[in-house]
Amino acid sequence: MKIQRTVFFVSDRTGITAELLGKTLLTQFPDAEFRKRTMPFVDTVEKAEAAVAEINRTAIKEGKPPIVFSTLINDDVRTAVASVNALFLDIFADFIGRLESELGLTSSHALGLSHGMGDELAYQKRMDAVNYTLSHDDGVNTVNYDRAEVILTGVSRTGKTPTCLYLAMQYGIHAANYPLTPDDFPEQSLPKPLRPHRAKLFGLTIQAERLARIRNERKPGSRYASLENCRSEIHAAENLMLQAQLPLLDTTTMSVEEIAISVLHTTGLVQRVKS
Amino acid sequence: MKIQRTVFFVSDRTGITAELLGKTLLTQFPDAEFRKRTMPFVDTVEKAEAAVAEINRTAIKEGKPPIVFSTLINDDVRTAVASVNALFLDIFADFIGRLESELGLTSSHALGLSHGMGDELAYQKRMDAVNYTLSHDDGVNTVNYDRAEVILTGVSRTGKTPTCLYLAMQYGIHAANYPLTPDDFPEQSLPKPLRPHRAKLFGLTIQAERLARIRNERKPGSRYASLENCRSEIHAAENLMLQAQLPLLDTTTMSVEEIAISVLHTTGLVQRVKS
Repeated sequence: MKIQRTVFFVSDRTGITAELLGKTLLTQFPDAEFRKRTMPFVDTVEKAEAAVAEINRTAIKEGKPPIVFSTLINDDVRTAVASVNALFLDIFADFIGRLESELGLTSSHALGLSHGMGDELAYQKRMDAVNYTLSHDDGVNTVNYDRAEVILTGVSRTGKTPTCLYLAMQYGIHAANYPLTPDDFPEQSLPKPLRPHRAKLFGLTIQAERLARIRNERKPGSRYASLENCRSEIHAAENLMLQAQLPLLDTTTMSVEEIAISVLHTTGLVQRVKS
Repeated sequence: MKIQRTVFFVSDRTGITAELLGKTLLTQFPDAEFRKRTMPFVDTVEKAEAAVAEINRTAIKEGKPPIVFSTLINDDVRTAVASVNALFLDIFADFIGRLESELGLTSSHALGLSHGMGDELAYQKRMDAVNYTLSHDDGVNTVNYDRAEVILTGVSRTGKTPTCLYLAMQYGIHAANYPLTPDDFPEQSLPKPLRPHRAKLFGLTIQAERLARIRNERKPGSRYASLENCRSEIHAAENLMLQAQLPLLDTTTMSVEEIAISVLHTTGLVQRVKS
């Protein structure tokens, strides 16, 4: 039988950081099974004590200490949670201490600077970018391409739309996308709306077998989804994009996050989002 | 003058985890200025050595050791990076060691399980949810509400659309949204398309001053954006949602991430996304 443990992510804000790091670490133990539970918004000593009581009940019920990942800024709250009967992995404390001594500064112990609204201007920029991306999805609207920072192109179902949304939501990038369809191929040059914006274009491609599988999920048995059609669309689109000297990324085995990061780094847009 | 340091996020995959944790920690030092640089896809010893050389050049140029946050799974790559002339904060190593001894297991040292495609089925589910959310945005399509897991409602510009996209992208939740507009208020009951789905509804509201500010960004000086109109829409919408006994969340000071986490936890949908 597999080793089983209950894992708690305890945070004074959303718990997103604790979950992300914790889950990444847990994937390194494929031979164990983890029941996961997030406790967000634990921002007072009272809430911390309630969380501890519940985790301790789990410890007794299961006869094994749970695992606790915490991201807690307030010292009193952290001290309260640290008393828990569990493997207590406090993600902040150790690093904060080392940063304090390296920088010769005391940390501010201020809450919610990462997933709160934080800098309202930066947040508004992200929301503007999401709106822009939604209204420039799938080539429906090409008039405001001047405002785009990147325009993804490629055949249907290569990951353009979710990648644009991810770039907008996480990085505040104005990302548009324009599908290449069989109508575009006879001309052997970029579709007209794209031509003035060659420097912003970024091509996505994919292996035919995977594309056929994805398309078959949406339109089973269609010509659109057939391997033969996928092959021919991909071939024509790649030719067109290579001829126009676009950067070209094969997304076959990549997640949206990986595509987005590759786009950021290949285009140099990453300079825009770091400050 | 503020203390200045260059910060590197070094990862064998996207660097998202290193950036997220690192930036959260850095926000705790508002009196310092950080130049940030991400080095993703550092997955061989050769790439690690190139990264180290560049970081060491920065150290010499600036006369101060940079700060390095790393998430590196492979031991050889990590050892190569650890030799760097910098404050080396390795996010994984310490926690992996403590988990190994608590669980009595050796970690797998496998790459890319968190932001790669990982479990292809789970990934496909997220992409399906994004497609569902896009086609059920803003009440444009109400026929497939049976497949919705949550339907956000509220007046225009309370954060419904980005929250739905976030829930879909990050958690694979089928999230629809339906705006409440002045046309809906005279009836004093939920709009017809929503009535069969009361159990899935979740109301968002906002303070009038902030709503007016957001709407003025989009349509400056319009009646739609006027404080008076915002007040009256919010008042009518809140009455309607309270009467229908919907959960109601004030998003005035909340980010999309915080709204999404609150929706997950209030509705119990969080049980669906943990496994």
